[in-house]
Amino acid sequence: MSAEPDEQGLLAAVTRYERALTANDVAELDALFAGGDATLRADGTAALVGHDHIARFRARRGGAPARWLRRVHVRWISPDDALVVAEADRVDGHGLQTQWWRRQAGVWTVHAAHVSGGPSPARPGAGPDEQEDPATWRVRFAPEPAAAGPLAGLGVAVKDLIAVAGHAIGGGVPAWREQARPEPANAPALQRLLDAGAHVAGIAQTDELAFSLMGVNEHSGTPVNVNAPGRVPGGSTSGPAAAVAAGTADLGLGTDTAGSLRVPGSYCGLHAWRPTHGVVPVDGVLPLAPAFDTVGLLTRDGATLRRAGLELLRQQPTGRAPQALLRSRTLMALATPETALAVEAALAALSVATGIPVRDVEVDPAAPAAWTTAFRTVQAAQAWAAHGAFLSANPDAVSPSVAARFRAGAAVTDEQVGAARQESARVSAWLAQVLQQGWLCLPSTSTPAPRVDSTGEKFELARGGTLQLTTLASQTGVPALNLPWARVGTLPVGLCVLAPRGADADLLDLLRVLGPA
Amino acid sequence: MSAEPDEQGLLAAVTRYERALTANDVAELDALFAGGDATLRADGTAALVGHDHIARFRARRGGAPARWLRRVHVRWISPDDALVVAEADRVDGHGLQTQWWRRQAGVWTVHAAHVSGGPSPARPGAGPDEQEDPATWRVRFAPEPAAAGPLAGLGVAVKDLIAVAGHAIGGGVPAWREQARPEPANAPALQRLLDAGAHVAGIAQTDELAFSLMGVNEHSGTPVNVNAPGRVPGGSTSGPAAAVAAGTADLGLGTDTAGSLRVPGSYCGLHAWRPTHGVVPVDGVLPLAPAFDTVGLLTRDGATLRRAGLELLRQQPTGRAPQALLRSRTLMALATPETALAVEAALAALSVATGIPVRDVEVDPAAPAAWTTAFRTVQAAQAWAAHGAFLSANPDAVSPSVAARFRAGAAVTDEQVGAARQESARVSAWLAQVLQQGWLCLPSTSTPAPRVDSTGEKFELARGGTLQLTTLASQTGVPALNLPWARVGTLPVGLCVLAPRGADADLLDLLRVLGPA
Repeated sequence: MSAEPDEQGLLAAVTRYERALTANDVAELDALFAGGDATLRADGTAALVGHDHIARFRARRGGAPARWLRRVHVRWISPDDALVVAEADRVDGHGLQTQWWRRQAGVWTVHAAHVSGGPSPARPGAGPDEQEDPATWRVRFAPEPAAAGPLAGLGVAVKDLIAVAGHAIGGGVPAWREQARPEPANAPALQRLLDAGAHVAGIAQTDELAFSLMGVNEHSGTPVNVNAPGRVPGGSTSGPAAAVAAGTADLGLGTDTAGSLRVPGSYCGLHAWRPTHGVVPVDGVLPLAPAFDTVGLLTRDGATLRRAGLELLRQQPTGRAPQALLRSRTLMALATPETALAVEAALAALSVATGIPVRDVEVDPAAPAAWTTAFRTVQAAQAWAAHGAFLSANPDAVSPSVAARFRAGAAVTDEQVGAARQESARVSAWLAQVLQQGWLCLPSTSTPAPRVDSTGEKFELARGGTLQLTTLASQTGVPALNLPWARVGTLPVGLCVLAPRGADADLLDLLRVLGPA
Repeated sequence: MSAEPDEQGLLAAVTRYERALTANDVAELDALFAGGDATLRADGTAALVGHDHIARFRARRGGAPARWLRRVHVRWISPDDALVVAEADRVDGHGLQTQWWRRQAGVWTVHAAHVSGGPSPARPGAGPDEQEDPATWRVRFAPEPAAAGPLAGLGVAVKDLIAVAGHAIGGGVPAWREQARPEPANAPALQRLLDAGAHVAGIAQTDELAFSLMGVNEHSGTPVNVNAPGRVPGGSTSGPAAAVAAGTADLGLGTDTAGSLRVPGSYCGLHAWRPTHGVVPVDGVLPLAPAFDTVGLLTRDGATLRRAGLELLRQQPTGRAPQALLRSRTLMALATPETALAVEAALAALSVATGIPVRDVEVDPAAPAAWTTAFRTVQAAQAWAAHGAFLSANPDAVSPSVAARFRAGAAVTDEQVGAARQESARVSAWLAQVLQQGWLCLPSTSTPAPRVDSTGEKFELARGGTLQLTTLASQTGVPALNLPWARVGTLPVGLCVLAPRGADADLLDLLRVLGPA
């Protein structure tokens, strides 16, 4: 008996259990339940007591409904005792399960279990009127005739930063749009989706020139976040996220410089993918900070993200899985304690579903502040380079807080940029080393979505905390996947998985085992 | 931290929790949940994490459905950690709850909870054809016109050992019935029920001359036990028990000499009450062993037993509750381990519902065998005295096993009876002492109902094991209540509560707090 909890052994046992359940491997399930008369299994109206009664029940029932764990809450009672509370999606609705696992002679078995579940409650109709939603949509297109291809039938909400042939890019700023010309062609990233059979559902709103993470736009309004009523949707890919969450689009095509896909994914409870910097073309996309700009996707379910992501990449997975899921206490602590706990539950579920163990890695506690500062320096300088001329000519075009961010870039010296670039190289080298040991898992945001009526100060706080988490991938160019599994109270928050540069297809392939197609 | 589990403290905390839930005392519920971000509450589709989220949920929900715990399974993880799995009846169906309680600085709080429940599943139509069920009913009466009184509308299944005016007593033996005359009047016990508004649903079967506990009768067949398909109903009040369980009667009026109400109550999952010897008149009832014979009741629900029992007693409760619920490891060990565990869960539920603590009492391990032998000696002698003449004249009237029991009485000497009477006085004095400390709780039977196709040997084993439990009340004349809350697998088994002589009304009053009226 050691004093350190044997998390890896416990999660491996839970994985064995889940796989045996899926396969209806009754012998394995029986072996994973403790022998003797005191073992409990409660379900429906009553508890069965005693291993043999439970085994008899199991032999008769002919299998359990297929399920996918979404959150696995582990509470250590002693080094040899843990309570595992898991939330699952099931083919027939939802499931909840509480198990008391005990380790004896090195072997983990279940001593008590409580299983419940059933049809999922109807989704409340919290969305805005489909026809009139200018906070989410700038333009909505008429339904397209049926196309062929792997993405046939899927409607794309295109962020108003990405070229749609025949339409001007609005960039979330009316003064910008007035001066813009209709685009001659679709952006190549969009064209890849359309070539695979998807169609454009419409052009959806963005935060002003993409330089925000909250999803608040004083010109068009704040899109409704149906998965967190009364909360912001996150941004800057705010309109596509709101539309996908509400079901008025299937794919959100957006950009991510400092977290503009991952943050709305986290706040709206969506799957999101920021690709390796450079692997998806950014032509036809309004730049913010080219050193970090990427084009990626938002979806409701993981299977759709995998399918559409592979089309956008035009690559196939190699089948390489990581040796471990890496967790850093330092990075977890950048989120609020309740967010970190929620993300831990999602990480445990990911480990159980994939069978990949969780391992801890050390991160220098001073590092996140350093890489965030370096990132912000380069971002501000590049943003000013991209839009300084427009903002100087149109000083009232954007709201004061966004204007202030741009103006900060005007003051950045070449020396500061040089130092920041050095820091960036250092972090990239360090992270590449870390990612050889496994894929790094961290909170996508430091909190769930703030309230719509938060003060500007509160929004800045949420942005500042989250940037320390999001800029690690931005800074180093590695791909990032947001899994929308965690919940703080009822509010969604995401688990972010970082893979080595170029491993996008394998990262998306993780979604293959995580739920129904 | 002590090495002995603080069962009393834990159950007291569970009681506080249940009462606060009933009263929707949100402040108390919040206090009983551990503070901090790690506390879990899972229900429906998801887990809430963190004390404050749980408190906010609780503040909004406006109370939980009323519920009555039926079984509380306690599993000790450490002296300071327990898993409490409770099964409940709810006004809206059924409920299940798993809680991890932890003691810190002497205070028990919930660190994780999983709640589930909903409408109870429809009862499978397992009963025999209502019109033709000679194994259960000897005679069925036409529905009576509506009467007035507290028992109005309740149909009585009268054991065929108790006088119904105009009908001969059959005693479960065709040769006996052929020689019997129609009874001139109802037995006074039956008349008390009729005076209170009940009506006779019919005359129901009994084991041969009531000298068995299994509910098997080779002349009329074995009544179907709808609550344990394929199992015997228990006897000798077999027909009334089967009828009440199936819903073709509301009250079973029967006799209990060595357990003939408690055993079918336990096997069929019914409430049963054996009164203090002598408080309910046995006139008009075929005797078996007058030193022990009593007339009492079987019902489905506790409220009906309380109501009808007080009519049969013609008494009202005094309001005196016991100081403790007494448990003896020696008596628990007379049941099979899985039965004892099931009964422990029912006992914990009784403690939680009433707020009365559980205390352990010592019982000499040699005592049960001694009191059982003494009881059987006197019973056999008295049974032979009552029916020896008939059985000598009709040697083939009853089955060989019952005949052997009677014949054993012919060989009992006056000296043996005298020694047995001395043992009886000794046990009665000892038990009276014990019952000053509280009411004694023990398994009603040593196992759930045996299979209908068991060998005679197996039936004898079940009878022998159970007699050690049932003859304690029979021997000493104290009242006994069977609470049908325990389950071994899906099979019912009863928790028996013994009160001091004459405390019947208070014992029945226990049922007041235990469920819906």
